[in-house]
Order: sequence, then C-alpha cells, then structure tokens
Amino acid sequence: MFKVTFAFEDGSVVETYANEGDNLLEIAREANVAIDAPCSGNGACGKCRVQLKCGELNTKKTLHISDEEFQNGWRLACMSKITADVEVLVPDIASAYKSRMKVADLSSKEELAIFENAKREVELAGIELKNSLDIVEVKMEPPTLDDTMPDVERLTRALRKFMNLKRVRIPYAVLRKLPDVLRESNFTVKCVLRTTPDDMFVYDVFDSREEVVIGGLAVDIGTTTVSAVLINMETGEILAKSSAGNGQIRFGADVINRIIEAEKPGGRERLQDAVIKETINPMIHEMCRSAHFPEKQIYRMCVASNTTMNHLFAGINADPLRMEPYIPAFFKTNSMFASDIGIDINQDAHIIIAPNIGSYVGGDITAGTLVSMIWNRPEFSLFIDLGTNGELVFGNSDFMMSCACSAGPAFEGGDISCGMRATDGAIEACTIDKETMEPSYKIVGEPGTKPVGLCGSGIIDVISELFSAGIINPKGKFIREGRRIRHDKYGMGGYVIAFEEEAGSSKDVEITEVDIDNFIRAKGAIFSAIRTMLSSLDFDVSMIDDVYVAGGIGSGINMRNAVRIGMFPDIPLEKFHYIGNSSLSGAYLMLLSTPAEKKTYELAANMTYMELSTVPTYMDEFVGACFIPHTDSSLFPSAE
Amino acid sequence: MFKVTFAFEDGSVVETYANEGDNLLEIAREANVAIDAPCSGNGACGKCRVQLKCGELNTKKTLHISDEEFQNGWRLACMSKITADVEVLVPDIASAYKSRMKVADLSSKEELAIFENAKREVELAGIELKNSLDIVEVKMEPPTLDDTMPDVERLTRALRKFMNLKRVRIPYAVLRKLPDVLRESNFTVKCVLRTTPDDMFVYDVFDSREEVVIGGLAVDIGTTTVSAVLINMETGEILAKSSAGNGQIRFGADVINRIIEAEKPGGRERLQDAVIKETINPMIHEMCRSAHFPEKQIYRMCVASNTTMNHLFAGINADPLRMEPYIPAFFKTNSMFASDIGIDINQDAHIIIAPNIGSYVGGDITAGTLVSMIWNRPEFSLFIDLGTNGELVFGNSDFMMSCACSAGPAFEGGDISCGMRATDGAIEACTIDKETMEPSYKIVGEPGTKPVGLCGSGIIDVISELFSAGIINPKGKFIREGRRIRHDKYGMGGYVIAFEEEAGSSKDVEITEVDIDNFIRAKGAIFSAIRTMLSSLDFDVSMIDDVYVAGGIGSGINMRNAVRIGMFPDIPLEKFHYIGNSSLSGAYLMLLSTPAEKKTYELAANMTYMELSTVPTYMDEFVGACFIPHTDSSLFPSAE
Repeated sequence: MFKVTFAFEDGSVVETYANEGDNLLEIAREANVAIDAPCSGNGACGKCRVQLKCGELNTKKTLHISDEEFQNGWRLACMSKITADVEVLVPDIASAYKSRMKVADLSSKEELAIFENAKREVELAGIELKNSLDIVEVKMEPPTLDDTMPDVERLTRALRKFMNLKRVRIPYAVLRKLPDVLRESNFTVKCVLRTTPDDMFVYDVFDSREEVVIGGLAVDIGTTTVSAVLINMETGEILAKSSAGNGQIRFGADVINRIIEAEKPGGRERLQDAVIKETINPMIHEMCRSAHFPEKQIYRMCVASNTTMNHLFAGINADPLRMEPYIPAFFKTNSMFASDIGIDINQDAHIIIAPNIGSYVGGDITAGTLVSMIWNRPEFSLFIDLGTNGELVFGNSDFMMSCACSAGPAFEGGDISCGMRATDGAIEACTIDKETMEPSYKIVGEPGTKPVGLCGSGIIDVISELFSAGIINPKGKFIREGRRIRHDKYGMGGYVIAFEEEAGSSKDVEITEVDIDNFIRAKGAIFSAIRTMLSSLDFDVSMIDDVYVAGGIGSGINMRNAVRIGMFPDIPLEKFHYIGNSSLSGAYLMLLSTPAEKKTYELAANMTYMELSTVPTYMDEFVGACFIPHTDSSLFPSAE
Repeated sequence: MFKVTFAFEDGSVVETYANEGDNLLEIAREANVAIDAPCSGNGACGKCRVQLKCGELNTKKTLHISDEEFQNGWRLACMSKITADVEVLVPDIASAYKSRMKVADLSSKEELAIFENAKREVELAGIELKNSLDIVEVKMEPPTLDDTMPDVERLTRALRKFMNLKRVRIPYAVLRKLPDVLRESNFTVKCVLRTTPDDMFVYDVFDSREEVVIGGLAVDIGTTTVSAVLINMETGEILAKSSAGNGQIRFGADVINRIIEAEKPGGRERLQDAVIKETINPMIHEMCRSAHFPEKQIYRMCVASNTTMNHLFAGINADPLRMEPYIPAFFKTNSMFASDIGIDINQDAHIIIAPNIGSYVGGDITAGTLVSMIWNRPEFSLFIDLGTNGELVFGNSDFMMSCACSAGPAFEGGDISCGMRATDGAIEACTIDKETMEPSYKIVGEPGTKPVGLCGSGIIDVISELFSAGIINPKGKFIREGRRIRHDKYGMGGYVIAFEEEAGSSKDVEITEVDIDNFIRAKGAIFSAIRTMLSSLDFDVSMIDDVYVAGGIGSGINMRNAVRIGMFPDIPLEKFHYIGNSSLSGAYLMLLSTPAEKKTYELAANMTYMELSTVPTYMDEFVGACFIPHTDSSLFPSAE
C-alpha cells in the first residue's frame, strides 16, 4: 500500500492509501476528492490536471500537457498510476462553469416571471391550481377522568367529524410528537393534512397559535445544473430559489459516463450522494435559511429531470438505459418518500417524479411540455429544451412526438474554455464591429459587473458576429488577423472578448476555435434533429407555428443570431419564444397543482418517442448542420 | 470536570467526565454503563452497589451497606456524588434474574405447545389462520426493441393481470432492486405481496429460483423480560424463539420509574434504545442466525406489551400515563413501520401493536385475553397475567372487565435475593420435610443441572412448604430453628434451600424474610384485586368457572400451593389452567391471522376497565391479603 496525499490550494489535505498500479483519478473519487473529469477518465478532455508535489507517478503523457507543464509536475490524473507514496496538488476546480450554489434574489421580477407565466397559462387552459395538502384547525375537549380517550383516537375522532371521512392515518412522526403538542396547545391544534376521497394522512400537528406554512420543493435536476424553488403550497408563492452545479459532474459530463461510473462498485451510492447530499440537501438548507423556513415543514417534493438523472437520484441501476433494448426502471413511480433517499425535508414527504417517456426523453421534457402549452393548441408548435442533451417535442392538441439528441453541455457554457452559466459576470449578448473588430457586450448582474465568461446566449452572439464580420469562415476557422485574434502553437485561432485587465477573472475572456467547434456540433445536433423529426412526419419547417425554447442558455438569447448560425430553422423571428427553465417551472406546476400533475402523466402517456439514431438520414443531416449556418445555405435565406 | 472510570470484572473500562456534585448513577446511565437500580435511584433497593477503587466519592451511607462493606469501598451509586477523579468497580450484574439472551431449543415440545394450543383453540372458535401476505410467481416477457415498457410498469401490468386488482404499490426498496432482479431472473420472479381488497403492496422481489419464506416476528415486551418468536407467515411454523432481560431494567424495575427516567433529557431515546437496540435487535439477529433466516425477509411484526412498554418502545411521551387523568397516546396505531423506529427487519414491515385499553391495561392483556378464550364461553372465567404488573380479566362471551394491580417483579424472580426466571438452574418445584426441614426440589434443565436460584413457581412452593411445616408464621417470620435456618445481624431469618457446595452458583440458594415479605405483597395484590373486582360485580369466587393463569412464573406452578399461600381463591384445583406466556402467544396469533388481529381489536373495544385505586375497599382487601393465607382464614377452608 502506498500513501496518496491530495493537497488543495486552501492548504487542506486528504490522505488515503492505494495499491501499486491503481488509477489516481479512481482513488480521488473513492476518497471523495473532486477532480474535474468530464470525459470520465479516458484521457480525452484533459481537465483532470493535478500537479506532482512529492513522490512519483507512472503517467502516460498526452497532448493535453505540454513539455514545459510536464516538467513542472502537471499530470492528467486519469492517465496516472500509483508506483510510490505520492502527494499531488488539486487545483481549485470551482470554475465559473461549475459555479457554486446561488440563492436567487426574489426581488428581481425576472426570476419569478416564468412561474407566474406558467401558472397563468395552465389556469387559462382550465387546470385548477389546487393540491391535496391543507391546514385545518382542530379544537378538542381536553381529557378528564370521565373522558379518558387516548390522544390518537381523540384527534382521529375530531378530524373525522370535521372532514366527514372514514380513514385517518397518523404516521409515526406525528404519533411521536402528538402527546406533547396536544398538551402544550391545550388540545387546540393545526394539522397539515393530505386528503383524498377515501382517506386523510396527517403530515404534521402544531400548536394552533403557531404560524404554519405548508412548504413544497420543486427541483430540476439537470445533468450540469440543479435548480430548485421552495414554495408555499397554499398560495404558490416562491419563498426561495436556488441553483448549483450538479455534484455528479466530477464523474463525467454526460449521462453515459455517469451511468458507467455508477456501475462500478459503490458507484450508485457515490452518484446518489453527489446529487442528494452534496447538491440538493445543501440547496434546501440554503433556501430554508434565506426564507427562514423549517426544512421539516416541506411536505412534498417534485423532481423533473432526464431519465438517467432520476434513476441516479433514486440510486437505481441505470445501466439498462444505455444497453439495448434501452429500458428504464420506471416511467412513473408513486411510492418514494423523502426518508427513503435521505432528502432533508419532512420524512413522510412524497417525492413526485415527472414521468419519463423513454430512456432518453425524461421528466424534464414532460414537465417542460406541460409548460410549453403546445398540447393546448390546434397549431403545430415545436418545443426545444437546450440542456446537456437537447430534446424536442413537436405537435399540437392532437398528437405529440419527441426525440433527443446529444448536444453536450455547450449551451450551459460547458465544453467552452470561458463558458459559464447565465449568472453574474456572464456575457449574455455581444456585437462586434465589422471594421475594428472591437466588441460591445452586455453582462449579467449589477451595472459595472466585469465580464467573467460567456453563457450560452453570449456564445451564440459572438459566433454569429464573428461570422458576420468575416472573422471566421463557415467551418469556424479564423480567417482575419488583429489585436484580438490569437493563435496557439498548433495554429488554432481565438478571439479575445475581454482582456485580463478588463475582465473580472484572472485571465482573458476569449473564444477559441475548439470552443467554436464544440458549439457548432451542439447547434448542429439540434438543427439536424429538428429537420429529421419534421421530415419523418412529412412536415416542413414552414409549417411550424411557434417555437418554444427552454433551458439554461440565458434569457438574453438573440433568436436572429441563433438562426444566423444555423441553430434554429429560418422562420419569422416572432415565432420564437424563450420560456426559461421549463423543467423547473413544470415541476413547480406539478407540485402546486394535482390536476397539472395528472395532466403531465396524460401528456407523457400520449407522446410518441422517436429514436433518432435509427433514422438513416440523421447522420447526413448532422454533418450538413456542422457548418455556419449549414452546407445547404438555401435553408437560411434570411442570412444571405 | 472530573474523570470517572467504570471498571468491570472482565477487565474492561469505560471512561467519562463529570462535574462536581453529579450523581454517580446518572453518570453511569449517560455513559451507557449498566448498573442495576430497580428503584431508579432513590436509595430504596440497595442494588446499585459499586466498589471504590481509586479517588473518592461523597456518599450518603444507608442500611444497605454494612460498616465492613463500607470499609471495603462498597457504595450505592445512587447515593454517591462526584468530588474528585474516581474509579469504581461495577460488579457483574448479569445475575440469573437478568439472565442473558437465550435462544430456545425448538426440539422441546413444551416450548411449542402454547402456540399449537393457541392456534387450535382460535380455529375451533371459527377464526381463520390467514393473513394478507403471500408469495406469487410472476413470469414476464423480457423487453425488446419493440416492447420497451419499463420494469415497474412491466411488473405492475403482470401483477394486475395475475391478481385482477387495480392498484399496485411498489415501494422504494423494491424499485431499487427491481432492475437487477428482473435481469438476473430473466424476468421470472417471486413477489412477496400484501393484498387487500383494493390494493397490493409489493414487499419484495426475488429471482424465482430462490427459496423464499415470508418471515414474521411476534414479540412480548415485558417490563422485566422480552420474549419473541420468528415464524413462517404461511404455515405458522416457529422458526426460532428467544428471550432476554429487558435492557430498560437498569432505568428502574417498574413502569413508573421508567416513565420518570424517560422524561429526563434524552430519556426517551435512552429507553427506546435500551429495548430496541440493546434487546430486541440482538434477539432478532440471534434468532435469524439460529434459523439461517435473513432479517430483511421479516415482513411483519406484532408487539404485545403493557401500555407503558409500548409507549417507550415507540419513543413516545409516556408521562401522561402516570398523571391524572392517565391518558395514553394511543390504544391502536396502524402507521408504524420497522424503519420508523430502527427495528432490524425489512424496512417496510408493518408493526402491529396489540391494542391497549387503558394506561394500566395494555396490549399484553388484550393479546392474552384472545388466547385465554374466555370471550368464547358462556361460563364466567378469570384470566390472570402475572407480570411485573398483575392484570385480571373477568367475564364471558357477553361482557369482560379488566383491572391491574402493581405486583412487582416477584413472580418472575425479581425483588427476590435468589430469584431468577424459569430457565436452566431454576428451582421450579419444592417440598420440605416437616420433621427434618430438608428440602427436595425439581430444577429446570437437563438432568443433573445444579440449582442456581428460584423461579416464581419455586418460590410459591418454598413459601407454602415453609408455612405448612410451621417454619414461618402467617406473617412470613421464621419461628423454627435448624441447620438450614439463618438469621442476619438484624435478626431477619432465612432458609437455605441449597448450600453453596450443592449449588450451581457461588453462593447459597436461600430465601429470606425480606424475599417472603416481597412475595406476600405481590400475591396479596393479586388476591385482593380478584376479590375487589368480583365484589364490585356482585360476584363471588364460587361463581368462577375457570381460571387461566399466564406469565413467566413457570409452567411448574403448583396451584394447590398457590391457593394455600392465599394467592388464588380457594376453588377446586381442576379449575386452574396455566397457559404460559399468553402475551407472546397472543402476539403470535395476531401476527399469523388477520381475523385474530381483528378479533383482538374487537375484544379490546368491548372490555371495561376498572381503576382499582378508586375503589375504597381495595386497600383493606390488600392489607387483609398480606398474610399467609389471609387474615380471614375462612376464605381458605381447604387449607385448614
């Protein structure tokens, strides 16, 4: 056994032991040391860099480490094997891309608009915003020597009288506190109930003098980003909102790498812990702190996420999702409770999961479809969710078809050297002067915020403007020179949007040919998926009445530029609508409204799934779409 | 802070810290050091002896410690306060009375007879031995690219087809293992189900090639002793049987002291841990080991116990039980599961609790009443449960009345210097020669087992024989002399049944005047309760048709002697029937048979409770009964 020491920039260390030949990245994961490895350790991404401080490693050298860097001790952890006692420095990986948890400022109307819109739209469609949770006040006669009825029977009798219902269920958590609460309150209590036509479940009991708000939690578990809102289940009010990087990201950037990681010994637990203990629970605590809300008073949770994410969240074998015939463990599940999987809310809280419709179209899309309202109109609409996977739903009130394509994390700033989510410091819009090649940009945050990186909408603008200015060619290669244009030693170009001295980070904010290439593949995947699905239905893009775009790409998305670079079809711009994180707003609706929850199950049951990889023309479409805007420029008449 | 070291006879030590003036017994309890203190620390019982090894203690001297013993360092922990660093020896308190866990030998027919009898009797009364648990084999078509239904939906569909029922509930524990089991079994599985008219709950799923037995656990939680059986829920077969001292005993011998202890900070958790983690869970593991049975395949548990014991078991505030108006938290509770309270069986196992009917008549009595069958006959019968509390039920198929009296633990060997439970080495029967005063006795266990102590039935015999031989007077005082008669320095007499050299323990097996006095009070409580209850109904003992005696007193109980000492009324001996631990056999029936469970709820609902302490004549009756056989000897004509 050799001793392996991971040292961090803040001076802390983690020590563990390993055998000769063990892989350093694996050891780090087992020791719960976060090392960024989007490719999941096959040497492809070059992100798992560590610096050798003492001892030695047997490292296979790759192009990701220059000779000089190698000289200075830099190694890829995934390519390194243990041969002796060793100490390595793990650089601070809390990049803007994987930015830390953020609790939203609810005074900003923009933060709340998507929930307000979503509520208004479903109400207009006749869906009532009503759920089965309720608070009732119950006054009982205190017991006497002549009336010695026990506490449980006394409360049950009082509730039955009140609600005229047969069966009352008092769970252990309530039984345990009941004698104390009844006596403190002199037998006048508030009960938090779930009532259905045949029974009543008592979630909680309080002294009637206490203010009680029924809390609910809606969570969107994205492959890259997790977002959540804490709500008042009676009014629908948003009490707190938060987002954070999905802690699973160190096990791989995409779902396939995570599934593979989950199948290693102890992997399911590690992946489940990463999303629950390291991501969701801290978000819950932060939101509850900011809203002064007790965790135990959150009585229901709704999760919307892709199929892999909800399987890993539940700690369930996800391997069959990636193996023919690609079978999920569940579409719907109705028997999961907070205590089952260690969510830090009321232990009896039901966990509702937005239904999956296939291995690659999950609850994020069914919840998002609910919000898109495309199911409520006779006109044909297209719903596009730009996540790490891109998913599309096309249809109307009569039919809906869905498909998924692997876009990668570029829309959320992943796989882009200066990419970040649409949070403070992100460049969300940009223009470039055709003559001087100087940029003007708009930054997320307070006036005066300095640029830190590029979010999805910013990247679209930069690429579109670079192309319009003739700085890059249709393949995304740099073809002009200037003070903002750079070339690395391999000749790969780059454009500096903000020099270090103007930027809010310690380096230039720039976009490189590699970034552009990654982004072109992402937008190509989306565009070719749209074309393939429509063709298979004998539809044409001209027949699309409305396009609803969702995802973390940023509300600043310039649809004209998105069309110009060939990401979206060339149809009138007024047809495009950005609807934000519809997975989260859909989860919010399902949480708040039982009819909305039922509607989502109904939509899921009626949605057809199309497997793109089985369509022979898809690959041709994709190759054609990997240009700016496309190899067939007649598809983009407005760009000319 | 001072350092307090508890040293044990096996050489181990426990170290903790305390403040000046802290009570040594309290410190021991907080440090989880078991020191016997039946009186719960008020100096009354003299059992919490420890020996000072180093340092000093500020101890109030009591009569329990002689001058010589004090000289040798002996102190009562409950009377000692911390004044300095100290080390004390904690003597091995694993006395025969609090004997260690024992797994029964099931080849002994006697062990199983009470369960066989109980089953036969209820079946004769028309109660079916059927519960809602079942195993079914389900064969599914494996998924294909053309049939991509998820696992949960596939199983649900197959079960619905099979059982023609609407709602199928698949809990998290099954969801989690389902993808693996389905694939290992090639989609042919065995399901453990609970089926009710409207739904089906899937407890577990196995490869169909596995042998699966549905396990159930019946537990009698006595104040002094806990007994349990592990059973096959399909056949009712007893797979293992075990008993152990209730780990709560170090917090007090009776229910009142335990309730007081539970109300101290952290007390509920300590009392709950003592009975679950320290007592029941180890019994489960031992039984499962002996039966080669997996804990997780125990899908239901039934607990019968007095009201205080089931409150403390559930970790619920029991204080209202002992305070006017004496209100339990529950009579019935139907929403407790193994995972709620940390019972080491299947996490979804339902915990059925035999119903209480009052603060002092609990589920042990309702379960025992079921077994006694007194509810099934027109004749009037009396059911007596001799536990730490004595409880009586009198009635027939038309009405039943119950009451409780505080008998103390004497019937199970508690409060008796050489008392023990009816296990190996216990003297269970005894005669004493009137001339020579020499005893002959019968010992529980293999032939040749040496005497260790006296169980309840042995104590009855010894007292009856001492009285018949004129060795003790009606007050229990020694009035003859001889080689087996002893007197201590206060003049208190004693009788040696087995001298050290004949005994299986390191000291004489004897009975003292203090023991006899304790026992007379216990039997007096029972007799006076019988008289008081019957008088209140205008009944007379002659109207009792049958008497069913239950409890851990031992199957060797000699009813003639029990009558002779004035414990039971003087009616024909053939009317008495010893039915063993009816709390356990009742729990067994409720576990095995849903109709028996329902019958018990019905019995409980129809049973009237009489509070003896509110009957003005009870105390007079008790005082009169604290003689051998009674101050009114006309009540015992056969004894003359």
